[in-house]
Amino acid sequence: MPKLDETHDPSRHSWVKSANDGTTDFPIQNLPLGVFRNGAGGARGGVAIGDHILDLAAVLKANLLTGDAKVAAEAASGPTLNPLMALGNRYASALRREFSNLLRADNSERAKLEAMADTLLVPMAKAQMQLPAAVGAFTDFMVSIYHTERAGRASRPDNPIPPNFKYLPIAYNSRASSVRVSGEPVKRPNGQFKNGEAIEFGPCRWLDFELEVGVFVGPGNALGTPIAIDQAPDQIFGYCLLNDWSARDIQRWEMMPLGPFLSKSLSTTISPWVITADALKPFAVPAFKRPAGDPAPLPYLYSAADQAEGGLDIDLEVHLSTAKMRAAGAAPARVTATNTKHLYWNPAQLVTHHASNGCNLQPGDILATGTVSGPTDESRACLIELNDRGATKIPLPGGETRTFLEDGDEVAFSGRAARDGYVSIGFGECSARIDPAPAWPGAQKG
Amino acid sequence: MPKLDETHDPSRHSWVKSANDGTTDFPIQNLPLGVFRNGAGGARGGVAIGDHILDLAAVLKANLLTGDAKVAAEAASGPTLNPLMALGNRYASALRREFSNLLRADNSERAKLEAMADTLLVPMAKAQMQLPAAVGAFTDFMVSIYHTERAGRASRPDNPIPPNFKYLPIAYNSRASSVRVSGEPVKRPNGQFKNGEAIEFGPCRWLDFELEVGVFVGPGNALGTPIAIDQAPDQIFGYCLLNDWSARDIQRWEMMPLGPFLSKSLSTTISPWVITADALKPFAVPAFKRPAGDPAPLPYLYSAADQAEGGLDIDLEVHLSTAKMRAAGAAPARVTATNTKHLYWNPAQLVTHHASNGCNLQPGDILATGTVSGPTDESRACLIELNDRGATKIPLPGGETRTFLEDGDEVAFSGRAARDGYVSIGFGECSARIDPAPAWPGAQKG
Repeated sequence: MPKLDETHDPSRHSWVKSANDGTTDFPIQNLPLGVFRNGAGGARGGVAIGDHILDLAAVLKANLLTGDAKVAAEAASGPTLNPLMALGNRYASALRREFSNLLRADNSERAKLEAMADTLLVPMAKAQMQLPAAVGAFTDFMVSIYHTERAGRASRPDNPIPPNFKYLPIAYNSRASSVRVSGEPVKRPNGQFKNGEAIEFGPCRWLDFELEVGVFVGPGNALGTPIAIDQAPDQIFGYCLLNDWSARDIQRWEMMPLGPFLSKSLSTTISPWVITADALKPFAVPAFKRPAGDPAPLPYLYSAADQAEGGLDIDLEVHLSTAKMRAAGAAPARVTATNTKHLYWNPAQLVTHHASNGCNLQPGDILATGTVSGPTDESRACLIELNDRGATKIPLPGGETRTFLEDGDEVAFSGRAARDGYVSIGFGECSARIDPAPAWPGAQKG
Repeated sequence: MPKLDETHDPSRHSWVKSANDGTTDFPIQNLPLGVFRNGAGGARGGVAIGDHILDLAAVLKANLLTGDAKVAAEAASGPTLNPLMALGNRYASALRREFSNLLRADNSERAKLEAMADTLLVPMAKAQMQLPAAVGAFTDFMVSIYHTERAGRASRPDNPIPPNFKYLPIAYNSRASSVRVSGEPVKRPNGQFKNGEAIEFGPCRWLDFELEVGVFVGPGNALGTPIAIDQAPDQIFGYCLLNDWSARDIQRWEMMPLGPFLSKSLSTTISPWVITADALKPFAVPAFKRPAGDPAPLPYLYSAADQAEGGLDIDLEVHLSTAKMRAAGAAPARVTATNTKHLYWNPAQLVTHHASNGCNLQPGDILATGTVSGPTDESRACLIELNDRGATKIPLPGGETRTFLEDGDEVAFSGRAARDGYVSIGFGECSARIDPAPAWPGAQKG
């Protein structure tokens, strides 16, 4: 396990009581960073603690920080976290240690801090979360062998795993401009698809979600300067949940030979809180155990440290609710339960491979894992797997079924890391509802 | 032909004499925009005229502009043209009209302007050109059917044209962070490729260029709001030359099934001057004449205006020089001569298709055409076509040959639009030299 410090101490509690209830995603051991607005105030950085947000601008104004932590808070107190990401993880780590100390129940100045709580803390219920970063680039990988195998059966039934899968983390550049924060509705896209032998243009009929984890890049690298695998962890600022909405009918028709394009750029939803690399240290696991006969990673993608502790153990779930279910007061239905430990390639390997040609990564870039499917049926992490490539219907409470998403459907992701002896931490919510496709003047069948 | 105005008048000359020599890329009928530095001054917008740059900040300081033109010059006088692109083409058009007037030989205030020339004009030889825009996204299309056919023979010998090619402009998201301006050297990338049956990691052996034209997006659209084909021209701010450097061995191994990734993000070189949509109006041509039997564009990609004048007639050339040729004082060898009129899809169709799913385009985004190859042998616009997919050697002066690019090779693109009765305009240079791959500690064969 990576080196831990006092911020991971499971006995540490906070004077913010909601952080200690054992169910919150945001105990004092988490302290994720995000950007929020409330009332007339501008967008600014904050740290989640229980059901509150520690307002970085207010903490700075109260003069509660010094040294690296102060530099970090200044960098994170504006409308994006990019300046903090650019500084390198030393600064975010210093901020974490200071905030863990500031918020702990046994802080000797607790009384003084509690007296300032109204100034320092904003109730989450009164805040509007923003995108945590200006996302300059969004790269989507495909590193679950289970997803690759199930999804590949459609186009390559005899050989669903592409020959390069075990040698490199397969990826494509996705669209950064359409990345949106949890809660913003997603419009069903119009697009071209094949309907029988006809080529048509109209609202997507096969709209899907993909449950993924996003990695936020830290300081980045200069063009032409690769990142060795042992340096890759320094480039990982933190993690979020990511819904890579996918228009399967558009995708099937457009993607050969240059890959997915409009089937993905309709919108991408991410959770607002960035779970830092530090917070996830207790949940490190060894790299995926490759089956006998699989090749070892090439030297540039191999390090002993990455093999020993480069994986992550994060439980992930998908809940789906339809308009009818919500009207009937039914709870959302869990359709997926999976875990990041099923991924064939680790985050550090994604970073190193991405920069191996000299490509310059930049602070705020997102590298997503691709659909985090596991081996079991319940761990299928998108509808195209759950519906057996369109062949079956997924039963929902109240007698409804789904093959693909319908207007009004809401998809919510959650993530939680737990380990015996440590306090469990969560990712907050990543959810959005499907709105109807925009009308297109003159849209017709071809 | 689109509506012309006095700025296209072939009888108009400039008091900047080098603009009138008949060979310059930058006569008064062109007036492209770029960003430059000279001496200690900051990066700022300028307009090319002959062998000089009209300094927008100096023009503003001299109080020579009013109205929309002044607003436009203010937007373009900073380190990127994005603010001008965001305003909409009305402003760039106003600026063009004002500058055409300001620079014309028969301006009634010519004497006063010439007296200010040292303040207003910077010799190109003393300026360092910068990227004209902060490129938020770079989308690469593949819309030459000749390139698609020749390149497709390698992977799909019996059916080289993908079935979707004639229905939609095929594209992928490429990497924006590695777009660089003409003159910056390009490092040969390291990467994974197949060598016989072995999978290796090391310097790319099959480095190629691709001659393309880039379209700079203007104001853009909100997420979820498509752009109808008749509105697409308002979204096209201007054009540049673009070299989509391609690592063919890396590409062949990585691209199935999600498309090109590291084989393209090593670097992309663009010309520094943005040729405005206005400047190219005299060179509009009808859409590509589809062979009998090809489908008509679907309604969302069809408009009478686009069919009548949505294409462009721009002659493009590639010149190659090796270190040996330069040492011997040999002129660069022309290896390609082609024209944008060979493209199957028009720029407006690229814009409309890109936004058809609601994807939000943004000012400064680049939409590139893909390799602009034509039907003839001399119009093959990348090495993989010229060398018959690696099978033949391209002869060069002095007895050298090339299959792919070697370290020290320099590739220079040029572009020129000409039409009887109009003054010919050019694109300036898009060139770069290949530097050796960076050493990778521990890089080994797999």
